[in-house]
Parts: sequence; structure tokens; C-alpha cells
Amino acid sequence: MLAHLSRIRVVLTRTSHPGNIGAAARAMKTMGLTRLFLVDPQCQIDGQARAMASNALDVLGRATHCASLAQALDGCVLVAGLTARRREYAAPFKWARDAAPEVIAAAAAGEVALVFGNETSGLSNDELAQCRLPVAIPTDAQFSSLNLAAAVQVMCYELRLAAREAAPASASADVPASHQDIQRFYAHLEQAAIECGFLDSANPKRLMPRLRRLFDRAGLEREEVSILRGLLNAFQKHRKS
Amino acid sequence: MLAHLSRIRVVLTRTSHPGNIGAAARAMKTMGLTRLFLVDPQCQIDGQARAMASNALDVLGRATHCASLAQALDGCVLVAGLTARRREYAAPFKWARDAAPEVIAAAAAGEVALVFGNETSGLSNDELAQCRLPVAIPTDAQFSSLNLAAAVQVMCYELRLAAREAAPASASADVPASHQDIQRFYAHLEQAAIECGFLDSANPKRLMPRLRRLFDRAGLEREEVSILRGLLNAFQKHRKS
Repeated sequence: MLAHLSRIRVVLTRTSHPGNIGAAARAMKTMGLTRLFLVDPQCQIDGQARAMASNALDVLGRATHCASLAQALDGCVLVAGLTARRREYAAPFKWARDAAPEVIAAAAAGEVALVFGNETSGLSNDELAQCRLPVAIPTDAQFSSLNLAAAVQVMCYELRLAAREAAPASASADVPASHQDIQRFYAHLEQAAIECGFLDSANPKRLMPRLRRLFDRAGLEREEVSILRGLLNAFQKHRKS
Repeated sequence: MLAHLSRIRVVLTRTSHPGNIGAAARAMKTMGLTRLFLVDPQCQIDGQARAMASNALDVLGRATHCASLAQALDGCVLVAGLTARRREYAAPFKWARDAAPEVIAAAAAGEVALVFGNETSGLSNDELAQCRLPVAIPTDAQFSSLNLAAAVQVMCYELRLAAREAAPASASADVPASHQDIQRFYAHLEQAAIECGFLDSANPKRLMPRLRRLFDRAGLEREEVSILRGLLNAFQKHRKS
């Protein structure tokens, strides 16, 4: 359903070049996406941004400015992050074409964010940790440096094609957990692991990233988060009695 | 075969903006295309072109300058032309995704050209008449104006995917847990849930099936099972102390 494209936020974090913000707005609008979020931009929305936006000035003008990535992700059921690299312990990434139907399916259920990092450094590890679905665009092995707006263009193109093909509402009864619910579950899990002595907060190693990676892969549903948190509560309460 | 990409010429006719020529060079190189042809450009290859080319300066520097489109198409076995519109009397166009395999197949046999018109007016009727295969990129009906370099990016991306013999797997190389390991983990989880009072073994309801469904969906790895069982042990031990 093309209508699902209106539930997709394109989130640009710490963007350095105004031209890229404008070009991203244009890239979005050509594919039917309109909701641009700017997290802590490192530049002004100036004449160059407007020139590159061309007739997508409305998308640029209505962009939501956020101080933090968390704020831009508020209320999302799925957060996908564009990454050029595979990182140790990162969730297994999906190629753009494989990820697009998943993003569209999630957009049928609620708000979805597509996060793009800074031009020079991409997404930071902290930013990527907030993305359940890391996505990569296939590139030449020797020259993988896509321009930011070009990456936005390719992803929005894939989403448009996936939305066209998506069957109208397959009506799954399962409700995906919200981004915040999942973050709260991770915080709860970490706390319980510390309390029982399994996790040394002074030397956490890679425990939480490993566990997040596992649950991110599954794609938690709302009811599952509530079951898991109930179980953690029971573990914690039992201990105190 | 990715090698076929080296037989594809990207031909830009009457381009007005140097930044677009540079950005097109970068878009090509990220996807493994290197042969840029410039027909009667309406601008200089200046500092802006070089800035937008980024590390694709080699592609920009080796561009072939032609006085006419016919010259740029010399020796080609297939000429594809990007068009935003269906025109009366034009050959039936193909969508980019459908055209890409045809372009790659032709590149296995000889030189192929992909022609992009001027930013404002696109391909002229005369130019389009020289293209055997008109190609269109799907866009929003109300806003179909792709930036030139963005159109080059999308087409080169489609060509790269079509040229890849087999997509490298999206999945990771991590070792999956064995069926028995997973069954032992489920038994352990159930036991721990009973001990802490969360699961009533006389009235288990759907708890374990729900939890199994979640972890089955994730596809547990060997090391993850070992982490989860370590955590369960810690919960259980902590209780007894």
C-alpha cells in the first residue's frame, strides 16, 4: 500500500552539509515520502539546502527538528538504520531490497523510522544500537561511499517498490512492541542481570549488545515484552523474599 | 557478472549543473561503473563538480567528451534512455527494475549506453529516438522530478543488483544452536519460571509456547543459548543464597 509510505520517517542525524538535507527532501518526495526528521544538524537550512530541495521545499519546511535521536524515534514500532559496514555483534544486517518489505509491513502497523548517519562517519555505535534493523546498500567493494542523499534516494526507491507490491493489510493480530517498550525491557533485563550477579556493571563486556541483538532479530511483540518483563519481575521478587 | 558493468557507458547529454556531473560520477563508482560520457555539456567541470565527485575524481577525469549523442553511442549494441514520461509514439518503456537484466545481458555481448537528458527538459525527442530501450524510474505521480544524479544512482544500483550473480547472504556467519541445545534451554527456562512462581505448572496456559515462538523466530545461536542459560543459572543461584 503506497499509503504506508506516509508512516515512514526519514531521520538524518548530525548532517554536515545543507545541500544533502535539501537533496534528501527531494529524493523522499519523488518516492512519496514526506516526513523528514533532523537530529542535531551540524549546518543551517540555507539557500543551498533550498536549491537542492527544488520543488520539495514543503518537505524541507515541515521537517521536525530534534535534539536527540531518541526523540526522533518516539512512538516508532520499527527503527531501521543505514550502515555501510558490518560491525561486530551488530544484528545481522539486511540488504536494502530484503529490508524494504519488512519496513513496509511494519509501517502497516505503526510509525517506522529510517535513520541515516553523518556524511563522514555514518551512524555512531550508540545510534546504531537504537536501530533494530541494520540495512546496507550493496556497493562496489573498493568504493562504498554513497552520498547521503543518494542513499536516501535508493532506500526510498526500494520502499516505494515494496509498498506497491505489498498486499493491502494482511491483518496480523500481533501488535509489534513500541521502540520505547523495547528499550524499557532492555533496561529491565540489564538491571535484573546486575542484581543477580551475572552482569558486572564495572565490566559489562558485550552481554547487553549480544542480548539486544538476539531480541532485535526476533522483532518483539507487545505481549511478548509484557511476558518477559513479568518473568523478570518474578525473578527479582523471588530473590528478595 | 559484475565485470559486465565495465561495458556500460553512462551518457549525460546537455547537462547544466557541474555538481550533477560530479555527483553522477560518484553514484556510478559506488556501483562499480566507471565510463562516463559527456555530450555537449552546458557547464564547466569546475570545483563544484570535483567536490561532488568526492573520491570518484578518477571517473570524472577520464570522462569522454563528445560533441554529439551519436558519437557517444558509437559501437553500442544497446542504447537505453531514461525518461520520466511516456510519450506518444515512443517505444513501450520498461521500469528500471525490469530493464536492468536486459541491459546486463546486452553488456555480456558488447557495449551498452544508458542515456540521461538535461536537468530541465530530459531527453529531447531526437535523443529518445536514438534509444532502443526507454526506461522509467517509478515515482510519485504528483512529484516525478528526480535529480539527475539521483536517477543515475538508482539506475546504477539496479544494474549492480542485476549483474551480481548471487547476492551474498544477508545472514551472518554465526553458528546456530543445535536443536537439542535449544530444547534444553526451553526446559531450563520453564524450570526457572516455575521456581520463581511466574509459571504455575498446574495451569501453564500459553506461556511456554509463547516464549518458544519468540526465540524460534530469532533463530538462536550457540553462544546466545549459552549466555541465556548462564543468566538463568544466575537467577536461580541468587535465589538460593
